[in-house]
Amino acid sequence: MTLETSTLVQVGEFELIRDCFAPLHTPAAPGVVIGIGDDAAVLAVPRTQQLLATVDALVEGIHFSPDADPFLVGQKALRVNLSDIAAMGGQPSWYLLSLGLPGNTPTAWLTGLVQGLRVAGEAFGVHIAGGNTTGSPAGRSIHVSMFGLVSQDRALTRKGALAGDRILVSGTIGDAALGLASRQGRWTVEDPADRAFLEARLDLPEPRVALGVAVSDAAAVHAMIDVSDGLVADLGHLCQASGVGARIDAARIPLSDAAQRQLVKDPTLLSTLLTGGEDYELIVTAAEGALDMLLTVARQTGVPLTEIGEITATPELEVVSNGQPLVLEHKGWRHF
Amino acid sequence: MTLETSTLVQVGEFELIRDCFAPLHTPAAPGVVIGIGDDAAVLAVPRTQQLLATVDALVEGIHFSPDADPFLVGQKALRVNLSDIAAMGGQPSWYLLSLGLPGNTPTAWLTGLVQGLRVAGEAFGVHIAGGNTTGSPAGRSIHVSMFGLVSQDRALTRKGALAGDRILVSGTIGDAALGLASRQGRWTVEDPADRAFLEARLDLPEPRVALGVAVSDAAAVHAMIDVSDGLVADLGHLCQASGVGARIDAARIPLSDAAQRQLVKDPTLLSTLLTGGEDYELIVTAAEGALDMLLTVARQTGVPLTEIGEITATPELEVVSNGQPLVLEHKGWRHF
Repeated sequence: MTLETSTLVQVGEFELIRDCFAPLHTPAAPGVVIGIGDDAAVLAVPRTQQLLATVDALVEGIHFSPDADPFLVGQKALRVNLSDIAAMGGQPSWYLLSLGLPGNTPTAWLTGLVQGLRVAGEAFGVHIAGGNTTGSPAGRSIHVSMFGLVSQDRALTRKGALAGDRILVSGTIGDAALGLASRQGRWTVEDPADRAFLEARLDLPEPRVALGVAVSDAAAVHAMIDVSDGLVADLGHLCQASGVGARIDAARIPLSDAAQRQLVKDPTLLSTLLTGGEDYELIVTAAEGALDMLLTVARQTGVPLTEIGEITATPELEVVSNGQPLVLEHKGWRHF
Repeated sequence: MTLETSTLVQVGEFELIRDCFAPLHTPAAPGVVIGIGDDAAVLAVPRTQQLLATVDALVEGIHFSPDADPFLVGQKALRVNLSDIAAMGGQPSWYLLSLGLPGNTPTAWLTGLVQGLRVAGEAFGVHIAGGNTTGSPAGRSIHVSMFGLVSQDRALTRKGALAGDRILVSGTIGDAALGLASRQGRWTVEDPADRAFLEARLDLPEPRVALGVAVSDAAAVHAMIDVSDGLVADLGHLCQASGVGARIDAARIPLSDAAQRQLVKDPTLLSTLLTGGEDYELIVTAAEGALDMLLTVARQTGVPLTEIGEITATPELEVVSNGQPLVLEHKGWRHF
């Protein structure tokens, strides 16, 4: 039986693990004392470091369609988790993979997924430490637990934002929301290059690992979060955890050229950009005096940081557009 | 809206996390520097310790039925993972929870699951460090990543078994397989007490944490694994990892009184007992000179260890019954 023409139910679990997952094995992964193949992995955490741990899942029919390219699904499964490590200022290290796969899954699909995991893992220097594959009555799901390392007491949390802090955001906002609208046929992007760019921002988010590490080293940075549920929702989470509010200026929110061109066609898209999920950019709050240094750090990592507003004492989140409060229809991604 | 009469799609994610998962929050969990509620957990691994990490999942329609008691499902989701930490000789510490739940899941179901997680967590001293809940197009799934701590270079792996080692197994074997056969109507257990016992062994496996820790402290113990896929299959995994073989005596395999009574009714059940999954007992191999000490350790932890055979140089697994080789129809659990 060849891998190309078989399904998982034909291959059987033990052979499957050996053959399909082999590309993920790296003989000498840093800190992996014992990796895949025993009851549990044994991992060495350097004594100056604390462990970061997070889990996220991609589910067929919710996060990706049955005909999605498994290579991109595999990459995204790692990248969304890498973003959570980045948002704590940590260096990603290892991950655990838990798959739920119907028996009729083509092994070619699994092989594609593994290639995506391998490529994203290599790009960000993370290594698989263990995994589990189980059947599924319907739909494929990929659950990834991601680990990172951060110096003792240096993790940057959502708490700690102070009234008067400047709010900065990395990269550009709203591209993934437009990419999703385009993919689902709810919005037409005429320019094929713009369409490809926006959909790539949805499919291949760029976790801001280097920026997160650099920012966590900086003094006067008070809080950080990544934008997964949407700029407004995640800024809201940060404010809630810190017991503060925020005022941001819609006109200052960094948009890609492709997003700008869509907004020109329909200015009401602004709400979609501000509340759409999956940007995987970082929101940082810092004392005003730290701004210059932060912008320098951002230039060094090659990822722009843009100031978009300020933290307020009143626990409200206000978005101002042309001097007027902007009313948003809904504030973020809901999972059900 | 009250929790009792609502479904997840009505409650919405953020309220759900706050209300349903609240019982899992423990204010001062050891080593949890930052727990649920940020982008990632921050965990402190003592500098004399290594981190153990494993992941396993329970999927509706594969591992539990739609009408299964969520309290038991929650307990089992932790217990099967605790067994993997036990099998390395580690002390369980923290876990990450990743749920895939259809929007029509009653919140009462989730509340029951959380109660099961809470009770099992308290029983074994493990604390939730983070989690994620996502929608699911069909079927509920519970993915648990479990962490443990073990002294530097003291983890007991599947490798290291040596020809001449004695093979010991904890507790009793085959109860869960009979419980499953009873639950599925493939085998009738007349005595209600026996039926309840056997099905409880399926629903509430007993991870041998204290025994695993005690055994890993003992000299001359060479290899350990837990029995999840069945005695024969998992002994096979241990032998394969160690590059050895094994000969076990079917007559010496420890059976519960309830299992003994079923075997009297139908001696052909022996194969089911030896190859059925989900015992979550430990298989230990050790030099013959260590036997007395191991049996003493076992008595101290209150879990019997029984010698069932020996490791051989030839890489074959032989089961002997009344002096004759036993031929098994199938050797273990397949996941598809």
